[in-house]
Amino acid sequence: MKTIPILIVVVCAVVATAQQPSPPKLNLMPMPASVKFQNERLPVDTNFRVATRGHSDARLEAGIWRFIKRLEGRTVLTLPPTLAPDDQTTPLIVNCQGPGKNIPAVTEDETYHIDITRRQAMLSAPTVVGALRGLETLLQLLDADRNGYFFPGVQIDDQPRFPWRGLLIDVARHFETMEVLKRNLDGMAAVKLNVFHWHLTEDQGFRVESKKFPKLHQLGSDGNYYTQEQVKEIIAYARERGIRVVPEFDMPGHSTSWLVGHPELGSAPGPYTIERRPGIFEPALDPTREEVYKFLDTFLGEMAALFPDEYLHIGGDENEGKQWDRNPAIQEFMKKKGIKDNHALQAYFNTRLLKILQKHGKKMIGWDEILQPELPKDIVIQSWRGTAALAEAARKGYDGILSNGYYIDLIQPASQHYVADPLPADSTLTPEEAKHVLGGEATMWAEWVTPETIDSRIWPRTAAIAERLWSPRTVNDVPDMYRRLAVISLQLEELGLTHKRNQEMMLRRLVRNEDIGPLRTLVSVIEPVKEYRRYQQRPQTMLSQLTGVVDAALPDSETARKFSWMVTEFLNDGPRYQLYRPELSQMLADWQSAGASLSPVIDRSPALKEIKPLAQNLTQLGSTGLEAISYLKLGIPPPRDWREQSLAKVEEAAKPYGALEFVVISGVKQLVNAAAEVKR
Amino acid sequence: MKTIPILIVVVCAVVATAQQPSPPKLNLMPMPASVKFQNERLPVDTNFRVATRGHSDARLEAGIWRFIKRLEGRTVLTLPPTLAPDDQTTPLIVNCQGPGKNIPAVTEDETYHIDITRRQAMLSAPTVVGALRGLETLLQLLDADRNGYFFPGVQIDDQPRFPWRGLLIDVARHFETMEVLKRNLDGMAAVKLNVFHWHLTEDQGFRVESKKFPKLHQLGSDGNYYTQEQVKEIIAYARERGIRVVPEFDMPGHSTSWLVGHPELGSAPGPYTIERRPGIFEPALDPTREEVYKFLDTFLGEMAALFPDEYLHIGGDENEGKQWDRNPAIQEFMKKKGIKDNHALQAYFNTRLLKILQKHGKKMIGWDEILQPELPKDIVIQSWRGTAALAEAARKGYDGILSNGYYIDLIQPASQHYVADPLPADSTLTPEEAKHVLGGEATMWAEWVTPETIDSRIWPRTAAIAERLWSPRTVNDVPDMYRRLAVISLQLEELGLTHKRNQEMMLRRLVRNEDIGPLRTLVSVIEPVKEYRRYQQRPQTMLSQLTGVVDAALPDSETARKFSWMVTEFLNDGPRYQLYRPELSQMLADWQSAGASLSPVIDRSPALKEIKPLAQNLTQLGSTGLEAISYLKLGIPPPRDWREQSLAKVEEAAKPYGALEFVVISGVKQLVNAAAEVKR
Repeated sequence: MKTIPILIVVVCAVVATAQQPSPPKLNLMPMPASVKFQNERLPVDTNFRVATRGHSDARLEAGIWRFIKRLEGRTVLTLPPTLAPDDQTTPLIVNCQGPGKNIPAVTEDETYHIDITRRQAMLSAPTVVGALRGLETLLQLLDADRNGYFFPGVQIDDQPRFPWRGLLIDVARHFETMEVLKRNLDGMAAVKLNVFHWHLTEDQGFRVESKKFPKLHQLGSDGNYYTQEQVKEIIAYARERGIRVVPEFDMPGHSTSWLVGHPELGSAPGPYTIERRPGIFEPALDPTREEVYKFLDTFLGEMAALFPDEYLHIGGDENEGKQWDRNPAIQEFMKKKGIKDNHALQAYFNTRLLKILQKHGKKMIGWDEILQPELPKDIVIQSWRGTAALAEAARKGYDGILSNGYYIDLIQPASQHYVADPLPADSTLTPEEAKHVLGGEATMWAEWVTPETIDSRIWPRTAAIAERLWSPRTVNDVPDMYRRLAVISLQLEELGLTHKRNQEMMLRRLVRNEDIGPLRTLVSVIEPVKEYRRYQQRPQTMLSQLTGVVDAALPDSETARKFSWMVTEFLNDGPRYQLYRPELSQMLADWQSAGASLSPVIDRSPALKEIKPLAQNLTQLGSTGLEAISYLKLGIPPPRDWREQSLAKVEEAAKPYGALEFVVISGVKQLVNAAAEVKR
Repeated sequence: MKTIPILIVVVCAVVATAQQPSPPKLNLMPMPASVKFQNERLPVDTNFRVATRGHSDARLEAGIWRFIKRLEGRTVLTLPPTLAPDDQTTPLIVNCQGPGKNIPAVTEDETYHIDITRRQAMLSAPTVVGALRGLETLLQLLDADRNGYFFPGVQIDDQPRFPWRGLLIDVARHFETMEVLKRNLDGMAAVKLNVFHWHLTEDQGFRVESKKFPKLHQLGSDGNYYTQEQVKEIIAYARERGIRVVPEFDMPGHSTSWLVGHPELGSAPGPYTIERRPGIFEPALDPTREEVYKFLDTFLGEMAALFPDEYLHIGGDENEGKQWDRNPAIQEFMKKKGIKDNHALQAYFNTRLLKILQKHGKKMIGWDEILQPELPKDIVIQSWRGTAALAEAARKGYDGILSNGYYIDLIQPASQHYVADPLPADSTLTPEEAKHVLGGEATMWAEWVTPETIDSRIWPRTAAIAERLWSPRTVNDVPDMYRRLAVISLQLEELGLTHKRNQEMMLRRLVRNEDIGPLRTLVSVIEPVKEYRRYQQRPQTMLSQLTGVVDAALPDSETARKFSWMVTEFLNDGPRYQLYRPELSQMLADWQSAGASLSPVIDRSPALKEIKPLAQNLTQLGSTGLEAISYLKLGIPPPRDWREQSLAKVEEAAKPYGALEFVVISGVKQLVNAAAEVKR
């Protein structure tokens, strides 16, 4: 190429990119703080090589090789098997100033800069972790046309908005294999999340080997726990990707599984068995006995040595204190010490815990409930309550992270998580106070996930949360987020994640056949019921296999979004009603016929019996929608009772079955209401 | 149900089942030796429980729990979480007479009997492994209709035809993760294979930790090796499933990776580097130096202690001896000892090796080449040469297993593997001699497989080989095999195998989009080129990513089989040409349009450029087929040159591109030839 690179667009704030797309539509997520475009490109062909400049080490080199392997995977190119010399002909220079923190820390500098011209790409960063973040951005930048693969000419300046961007995985209610954790750590790195919050203990399971108290994992886990070697393997794997590992040992409640092997720690005599139900349970550690603190000192000392992160999460949530109320010795203790209620008793417990953590060199993090005046200012509050609680803590000088709004187990759409902001635009915190808001964490509570389904509950929605925590607040265009999320979702599967590929397998198993067409059509427009309604509507235990339609169905239906959008466009196009009419009619006709085709499929597969009403309602929704479109396109008013009857049918179809519900109800209603307004 | 169970069909030989299907079409694979049907059923509902009778142990109980979990997974039932008492109301009794071999062995008794009535199912076996085999049969028996899930009333008497039924996985040319090995062991157990032949060393990699000689794995594996702890984990996992683990250390050739850390063992001075190409290479251990035997004594002693199986595989194949020819010291040695050629020198090496193995309590197994008169009769010959070589060995009194015909890396259809028989019907061996034919092994050589693709090269075809090795020789109906294979293939994915689910992910990555429709249509009628042509046509190294269309394409196209069958039915229906005409025309029209739709997709994804000619030829094949059908159905003769021109186009389309070829060529030719015969 003989053209001289010309800077054609200068966009400093990314708002512009998101809201008024600039010429090349980049599929970056999280969106960088600043992107400038240059009208040129750096080809990626079989000569593509990478050199390091400045600092290099094993972690950076491993990151570069993962980058190269993924680049090769996507392009099907075989690239040279060695790093290149640092000269002008090397396509990519990774210029790293220093190693950064030896152990990933909340104070890590994750800044990076990318400058791509037709001659060379330069990735500069003050730390190895910064460089790793930049490599992920580069992979997202990869583009192609008939001339080959290339990196577009861009200048990117990027750093995170918040330093604590986490994903909690509850491995206690359902155990997750090493493989699951590793592929999710890869996914986290791809969207620049930097904290793996490892929720290791619960009423339903104690998942980490304790050499000091082996009865904890031996009796509390059904054999499903991580050995200390495996824990080290995960920590090393995470460190390689610039991800902290914060372990959580939930106390004093949520602790039934501890008490199976150590009933003497409990506030009631026992014996205890591993809890198999979801919910909040009574067992709690006894905060009044010295041997409990002695035990915790030894146990937490062991764990503090195993987990290098400076924080250790002590849970502290949802202890209702019912065992405490019924235990005369505890009541006596409270009276003697002047502890007025269970909240104060838990505060006493936390103060004791804090001393133990300090002794072992750890800072404390816990859920909202732990916030109390006696605690020092270097603890972190994780808020399931919300930004108000977080702001309140910040005003008092406590660091905090937000999880309210990021409960991905509740099957809400990405758009809903996307608007939850740890520091909302209307925040009244002073800049000094605002610094206490460290970020947030998505929480994968595991009542209803297994290794087969967990990826589909985490991804791709968590990428939207990752963007909220990394990108400027002004990056908030929901349709553009969804456009990019669809691309990133495909890329996440490269890493071994199974959020897309497992669904068809699950449907094949359910229909006992290859031909999943009609069931797939149904599943594309239903979602599991939201919040905590699944258990109410379709009770199972932690021992049940999660292989039903509700498990195969995905949150945040793409088809439903498309339907809703087409309905809006179609109705806005009145009175012509041309826009998207064929696609819309086709979709509704597909529903109509899929519902009917499902009948023999259900007869052959009793596991599908629970969705029989959904199949009938799918046909109903399709028919009603088609009728409405007919009236609209012909300009003929429907009969007098038609609106009422049709809306009644649609309402009927809105009822959940098998803990599943249609997410296309409002679109069909819109069509009915519009048709009912047709005047002759 | 008040009806009394009535025995309605008595089928002793399974031939009848396979060739003239009896009323209930069972989807069993491998087909049992004898199945009798009873007109009743045992329901599987939430009360389904299992009791043990006679012998029980941890291995049997674990097997029963895996059985229950899989049953729950398929039925979406939550079953009682404890074993039941042994009484008349318990639906399934597992009646096991004894533990069998503590370490899985070739002499294990794998017999089992199943008797299912409307009241109870009884699974009886002399050993735990026999009971495990029967549990797999039970899972395959599970059926359903609108009344629910059930086990059909059957009486099964079953035992294997051959005691050695293996799968070799080459983890050296491409490394496979623990996860891959475990899910494949599960797959093996599902189709009653009982030997995992772990091909651990090659020119391209040394994959097992040696504590005695750590440079072997440290320098010979790129860090991709199994620790001894992991080896023990795999052995335990296999033992739980009644599967032997036979390790292979290939010597004296195929040994480049050994020599990277230990060049002093080689027959040329070195230095050596890990081989990255496929092929046969010169490096070989030096059989003339005592220090080599000292080394092997220590190393094999270490491995003999690690692997409990009574056999240890020493490879021995494809050593061309070129390094030996060029080494004066070796030539001198041969002269002095009167060793006449390289074959004799390798025989000398093997005799020395044998002594080492005997010292460490192991029997030797090796490839054809090791067969020589000096060796004792308790060695096993693994034949890549064929049944003639195997029979010859048997006549000499050597045990042998067949691998010729089971090279699943060569991308042949299951039907071809299915007819390969270790003891063909025309065998002239005496019954005594025939006993030396122990069975066979499918061989997953790993030049072109990764964790992402290996399952699709092993499954489902290996299930057909498993049937050949387990079931009576008379079970040989190919269409019925394919019918059952399709069902078993779906069930194999339950176990975590990815042979079906990964394909769509790979296609999505290639097209960089959700919409893989046209590419899927193309891929459904092409296959990777067979035998060793892939490397010739599309060279890559062991370091290349295997993410191209050739990797996503599957062996043994189901669509091509269906097409071929429809063409035959359609042509046999002449002169009416009604049968399957709409389906056939639709399929051809799909090819025509998919080929055209692929053009913009390829432009956007340079990795697809290599299949551009295939896309054009797909359209061509569709058009030519449709033309032929038109002539046939209208009864109009085509123009004079039409046959020749059309066949030329079809021949053109038969050319491979991107190491891929159409497997629907002969069907289209049949259509053309038939159309050309149309007379006015």
